[in-house]
Amino acid sequence: MPATHSLAPQQKLLEDYVHTRKMTMKMIEPLEIEDFGVQAMEDVSPPKWHLAHTTWFFEEFILTKYRSGYNYYLEEAKKLFNSYYETLGKPFPRSKRGLIGRPTVNTILAYRKAVDEEITSLLRRNEVISEEILSLIRLGLQHEQQHQELLITDIKYNFSINPLYPAFQKEVHSLNTVEDVSEMKWTSIAEGLATIGTNEENFSFDNERPAHKEYLYPFSIALRPVTNKEFQEFIGDGGYTTPEHWLSDGWSTVKEEGWKAPLYWEEIDGVWHYFTLSGLQPVRDHDPVTHVSYYEADAFARWAGCRLPSEQEWECAFKNDPSSGQFLDSFELQPTMSEGTSAFGTVWEWTKSPYMPYPESARPAGALGEYNAKFMSNQLVLRGGSCATPENHIRLTYRNFFHPDKRWQFSGIRLAKDRR
Amino acid sequence: MPATHSLAPQQKLLEDYVHTRKMTMKMIEPLEIEDFGVQAMEDVSPPKWHLAHTTWFFEEFILTKYRSGYNYYLEEAKKLFNSYYETLGKPFPRSKRGLIGRPTVNTILAYRKAVDEEITSLLRRNEVISEEILSLIRLGLQHEQQHQELLITDIKYNFSINPLYPAFQKEVHSLNTVEDVSEMKWTSIAEGLATIGTNEENFSFDNERPAHKEYLYPFSIALRPVTNKEFQEFIGDGGYTTPEHWLSDGWSTVKEEGWKAPLYWEEIDGVWHYFTLSGLQPVRDHDPVTHVSYYEADAFARWAGCRLPSEQEWECAFKNDPSSGQFLDSFELQPTMSEGTSAFGTVWEWTKSPYMPYPESARPAGALGEYNAKFMSNQLVLRGGSCATPENHIRLTYRNFFHPDKRWQFSGIRLAKDRR
Amino acid sequence: MPATHSLAPQQKLLEDYVHTRKMTMKMIEPLEIEDFGVQAMEDVSPPKWHLAHTTWFFEEFILTKYRSGYNYYLEEAKKLFNSYYETLGKPFPRSKRGLIGRPTVNTILAYRKAVDEEITSLLRRNEVISEEILSLIRLGLQHEQQHQELLITDIKYNFSINPLYPAFQKEVHSLNTVEDVSEMKWTSIAEGLATIGTNEENFSFDNERPAHKEYLYPFSIALRPVTNKEFQEFIGDGGYTTPEHWLSDGWSTVKEEGWKAPLYWEEIDGVWHYFTLSGLQPVRDHDPVTHVSYYEADAFARWAGCRLPSEQEWECAFKNDPSSGQFLDSFELQPTMSEGTSAFGTVWEWTKSPYMPYPESARPAGALGEYNAKFMSNQLVLRGGSCATPENHIRLTYRNFFHPDKRWQFSGIRLAKDRR
Amino acid sequence: MPATHSLAPQQKLLEDYVHTRKMTMKMIEPLEIEDFGVQAMEDVSPPKWHLAHTTWFFEEFILTKYRSGYNYYLEEAKKLFNSYYETLGKPFPRSKRGLIGRPTVNTILAYRKAVDEEITSLLRRNEVISEEILSLIRLGLQHEQQHQELLITDIKYNFSINPLYPAFQKEVHSLNTVEDVSEMKWTSIAEGLATIGTNEENFSFDNERPAHKEYLYPFSIALRPVTNKEFQEFIGDGGYTTPEHWLSDGWSTVKEEGWKAPLYWEEIDGVWHYFTLSGLQPVRDHDPVTHVSYYEADAFARWAGCRLPSEQEWECAFKNDPSSGQFLDSFELQPTMSEGTSAFGTVWEWTKSPYMPYPESARPAGALGEYNAKFMSNQLVLRGGSCATPENHIRLTYRNFFHPDKRWQFSGIRLAKDRR
Repeated sequence: MPATHSLAPQQKLLEDYVHTRKMTMKMIEPLEIEDFGVQAMEDVSPPKWHLAHTTWFFEEFILTKYRSGYNYYLEEAKKLFNSYYETLGKPFPRSKRGLIGRPTVNTILAYRKAVDEEITSLLRRNEVISEEILSLIRLGLQHEQQHQELLITDIKYNFSINPLYPAFQKEVHSLNTVEDVSEMKWTSIAEGLATIGTNEENFSFDNERPAHKEYLYPFSIALRPVTNKEFQEFIGDGGYTTPEHWLSDGWSTVKEEGWKAPLYWEEIDGVWHYFTLSGLQPVRDHDPVTHVSYYEADAFARWAGCRLPSEQEWECAFKNDPSSGQFLDSFELQPTMSEGTSAFGTVWEWTKSPYMPYPESARPAGALGEYNAKFMSNQLVLRGGSCATPENHIRLTYRNFFHPDKRWQFSGIRLAKDRR
Repeated sequence: MPATHSLAPQQKLLEDYVHTRKMTMKMIEPLEIEDFGVQAMEDVSPPKWHLAHTTWFFEEFILTKYRSGYNYYLEEAKKLFNSYYETLGKPFPRSKRGLIGRPTVNTILAYRKAVDEEITSLLRRNEVISEEILSLIRLGLQHEQQHQELLITDIKYNFSINPLYPAFQKEVHSLNTVEDVSEMKWTSIAEGLATIGTNEENFSFDNERPAHKEYLYPFSIALRPVTNKEFQEFIGDGGYTTPEHWLSDGWSTVKEEGWKAPLYWEEIDGVWHYFTLSGLQPVRDHDPVTHVSYYEADAFARWAGCRLPSEQEWECAFKNDPSSGQFLDSFELQPTMSEGTSAFGTVWEWTKSPYMPYPESARPAGALGEYNAKFMSNQLVLRGGSCATPENHIRLTYRNFFHPDKRWQFSGIRLAKDRR
Repeated sequence: MPATHSLAPQQKLLEDYVHTRKMTMKMIEPLEIEDFGVQAMEDVSPPKWHLAHTTWFFEEFILTKYRSGYNYYLEEAKKLFNSYYETLGKPFPRSKRGLIGRPTVNTILAYRKAVDEEITSLLRRNEVISEEILSLIRLGLQHEQQHQELLITDIKYNFSINPLYPAFQKEVHSLNTVEDVSEMKWTSIAEGLATIGTNEENFSFDNERPAHKEYLYPFSIALRPVTNKEFQEFIGDGGYTTPEHWLSDGWSTVKEEGWKAPLYWEEIDGVWHYFTLSGLQPVRDHDPVTHVSYYEADAFARWAGCRLPSEQEWECAFKNDPSSGQFLDSFELQPTMSEGTSAFGTVWEWTKSPYMPYPESARPAGALGEYNAKFMSNQLVLRGGSCATPENHIRLTYRNFFHPDKRWQFSGIRLAKDRR
Repeated sequence: MPATHSLAPQQKLLEDYVHTRKMTMKMIEPLEIEDFGVQAMEDVSPPKWHLAHTTWFFEEFILTKYRSGYNYYLEEAKKLFNSYYETLGKPFPRSKRGLIGRPTVNTILAYRKAVDEEITSLLRRNEVISEEILSLIRLGLQHEQQHQELLITDIKYNFSINPLYPAFQKEVHSLNTVEDVSEMKWTSIAEGLATIGTNEENFSFDNERPAHKEYLYPFSIALRPVTNKEFQEFIGDGGYTTPEHWLSDGWSTVKEEGWKAPLYWEEIDGVWHYFTLSGLQPVRDHDPVTHVSYYEADAFARWAGCRLPSEQEWECAFKNDPSSGQFLDSFELQPTMSEGTSAFGTVWEWTKSPYMPYPESARPAGALGEYNAKFMSNQLVLRGGSCATPENHIRLTYRNFFHPDKRWQFSGIRLAKDRR
């Protein structure tokens, strides 16, 4: 009997399932019931919705298909939890998720528990489960991890607009926070064909596949992200008032939105502060700048005489990056600079690459074909994960993506430049 | 010692205070914590906000002024609860009231309790309190009653957009509900000078004062409001698709908003239903039509060969109206027609009168000058109270006012016509 | 044969027709072809459209009805020239009138000529024409005069947004311009029943009818309009930054629109200028302030410790006003103050009266019922005419009306106050 | 004396200058003065503006820099004609270009003539002009040609919203129009490194440079564009109502805009018609579909089991394409299918490639750095030119670019597919 037909994979998955679902529950401990329903802008979702939607995902894609006679736990409410799968019926309008009082948080928690019991009892069975089901459960856990990150960034945004500046956690600082940051150092990569993406058996999203060749020209890439201090120099040098630095669409956005600094920054008596998950704080100079849009990252890079890396350059440069940054697992939810900060964790890094399918990639059939592929327009790729990403969720080939004006993720800047 | 200097008025006021504030608490019993923060459109406020704002009113206008050394119970949060008093600092944006998780409901309830203790201990004192303070407390209670009505109409709107159609209360029907409604009957009023408004000592808002003369031409006014059945005839006769019936601004609104029936009406398999505080129900033919805008009331009246009454005509016609409709006190929160339905209670009645100051009226000094006067543009007067109005809150001279496109109040139609 | 059956009325009307239609042609002389199509905001119409629409009015309401076999001169284009008569088919969208290149100006002028020939040959006939037709032609001329005023105010707005500040006419000043303006003087009116509106046989709009009684309280009214100098004091005293002076809807408008002065005012090196039909000019202190909204007029009056008059007060006060201001006839298209400036001409005067039907008034049948009545919501009455009004167009009982935020008419301020 | 220092290049350029500038004048012959000022949506510009802006380009970038003592011909108006060069002062708002009556068309024509005299007298001089100046004049002519195409597409849009459906030209059909279209045929390209872009001395825009390597995977590409008939099958098969075919942003656009067919299509009595520059016409089945957005092109391709080509695939596939389609030069301004239709001319072809800088490309210094580079976000590349493109303007490496929702260009669809 081949290894793949043993019970081991499903026992491993059971552990992962329990760990990941518990993590979500641990994350919401600081919340009051009142915090669960808030949606302070269309891009964010109420915490309650994240809890329900990730649970619905397991129910919709696994239980209703592979458990005969299964009925939705909240039959009436299920349309509320469909995010964007048009093939599964008209989703409830995204902009109205925050207007829904019922079902209550307790009902949602009971719903989570009921679905958890279904899935874990399935995985505990003493018979081998098909790879198809295991795959879908793995996808469900990756999906849950993506929503864990959104849960953090959405709570941050929701709290930020409250004039009371509520704190989600006590102020925390990494033990190995640096006191000062050295000059920017660079690494150089030679010209030639690189292999990008993956064909590996381990889990990856469809958008990371297949492995393929790209021709890269010689370039240098910075060994750490841009700091708040460096970004303040850009501000001080008229960065936000000089159209030459900006893409045309970026400049329009700056004027329309009245941007003068990254999201959450506020000048109080001449000193820059930012809202953090521990409340309002003075800006820490040597930490990586975050909550910048692609437009700001691109403008900063142009001002600095550099450019952003492509996602292929980024992937090629950090193929063997051994070290490690800050992740959700430590619950230190504010990016800090540490010695040997790697390209992984701490802040997502905007690349200059539009989010597009890889050559010869295939869109999965059915509703899951909507998971990634239909977003492949008007968005840019970010790489490397952030302090709100679970450590075992990130990979070298992982492609995150957002529209170029979005700023509520922990998005930062890594510089690159041509070598010729 | 003159009567006005006795303790009696403040003992009576103490009773009123306790009764009114308890009523609010009783009203929110059916709510879950999750319901308290929802604001499903800009016109409504979250229930939590109503609880806090009415409390803040007592704190701001009485405690901070007449109790030396008093500090705001929620110093940090007080700007959240100012509705529109520009003289008291920039109010928090109305459209964002639903985005505020903290302070929690429990904190707000503690806040109510603390302020109640302050006010009641003031009224319990064994010394005569100045008429100025008593007046402000009376105003605060009238204000609380206004928000009791809004609490009901806002909860109704909030629940209505939830696809689960939650019920706030069990279905209730007045014992004396009629099974059929007779032909419209009319009463006629003769031409001449009428006295409108009041100079009485009893409480009234500044907008009801002073009493003054108006010249009225002979008219007839209906003895009951228009029913759902009559309104369905208007719909069936192309009422919403025939521009001739409508004011120009009304017709634009019909087209922009896609109106085809009153707010909350929904056609299901050819049968009209409406959302009520007891969930979705088939439309009851013989009950008064409600949740119509001024534009719809005006168009219906024109279609019916009639017009709306002026507020002066209304007041003159129902000066001696003895009977009584449905009020908040009975918690029957859906308008029903009953034998001898009077002009008071059940549904507010749109008049054709723009909301304007009475001749020789004066705007009160200070922040309370903002209470009514600054809204005297672009709104129409409604008269008579509704099933969500506390019975002792309504008066012959009471003037309610809303913009002509608003529909979420229990607003209905009373017809009038010229007699020549 | 009774006088009314003589040819005299139609001969008089023929003269009026020729005079009025020629006046329009004279008014457009300073325009280039390129000016005829511009619509710089939705409220204004392109000059070409005014020329065509007023002509269509004669064609639609007279020629197609009373001349058998008549075909529209521009059959294809006629839907372009219907302003708002829903009963005559869906009007072309108002906001797109400026996007229509064809028919050309020359075609429109030929169209005017053709219709003029039809109408004048009708009036020249040697047989008595029915009063019905004569009435409609009279209405058409009144309508043309209303559009003459709009032609001026719309051209002014269109020119004002052009950074070249084109001049429509050479700078003109009334010979009797005053060098200084005396203190405000007032006249007082006693309490009692007044007769408002008219039943006279002479032409008046349906909205001026019937004559009826109104009870007025004692008041004083100013003998001249407010000047630019007085208005600058309001500005200097923080008028536009103090919410207490404003109606709530007015204050929202001030903030949304960023108003800091009347329309067309611009501060250049500390000196107020305004755009006039003779280009950009320094503000003339002693001329009447104009291009203010109702909100600004109301706020100014409150700041000045006064109020605006009601339309009934205005009509009662100026019943016997003998003198005369500035009218379109002189082509002096900038309001100037002169000795003995009367209530008529120069600037329209905002009253505090919402535009509503008079008691017992009737809406005309058919499309002409849409002429006035359907606009009776959300607008305020202005009285007296302006420097862009033809002198023989204005009357004591004339009611003009605009939404309270509109400023592109020659609208000014006359103060009133209670006498008690 | 080297060849580059001879007078020949400037004599050649003089010919080109005269030819190109005359072409623009020829193009506007069918217009009435009234057509010159219309801007029927923000994306288009009034014809008058195109005439002035292209002239301003020569004045701004050549005359004011290289002719000492030169003054702007229309000093006052010059800010009106700056399109988007932020480095040259705040451009006049794009959305208001249609609101400007003056300067008149005659003034603009005189302006063109004056600048033409300056430039041609410069080129006629009997001394060698620096390559820098010649380059800028060449750029100015390429720029003029780009606006020639926009002039056509903008006039088409402006005319289309006029209910009179004016015709710009008589109906024209290519002599070699096909009566039927054969099955789609394909050509296949092998895997490997391709060279994309150009380093050639001949004129090309900065965005086509430098030549560089791209690794391409094996693919097939269609030998003709998609026809109206094929597109009607997509419509008939529910193409516009099936979300699975669409990108997420595309599907939102379909719903918001109510798209049911390409721009200009209208169903009349069950038959598809489209507005053309010769008025409203029945859709011709065998002609290439045009006026589709990227979203529609992408959805059609997915429905057809294909995809759009990348711009690199397109360039590689048509490197040696000998034949030739329809161009502006013939004034046949409606795409028609002809035997041997090539990839050049007739309709622009959407590629799947976001518009981004080529590797190692450099942004030109100064205002001309804004010409292309600042638009490199949120747009997609189109290749090949259209029936409104001057024939000598298009090149193999030419990159046109538009936002994915734009439809008013002559944009069509060429299919590709993976070969594995």
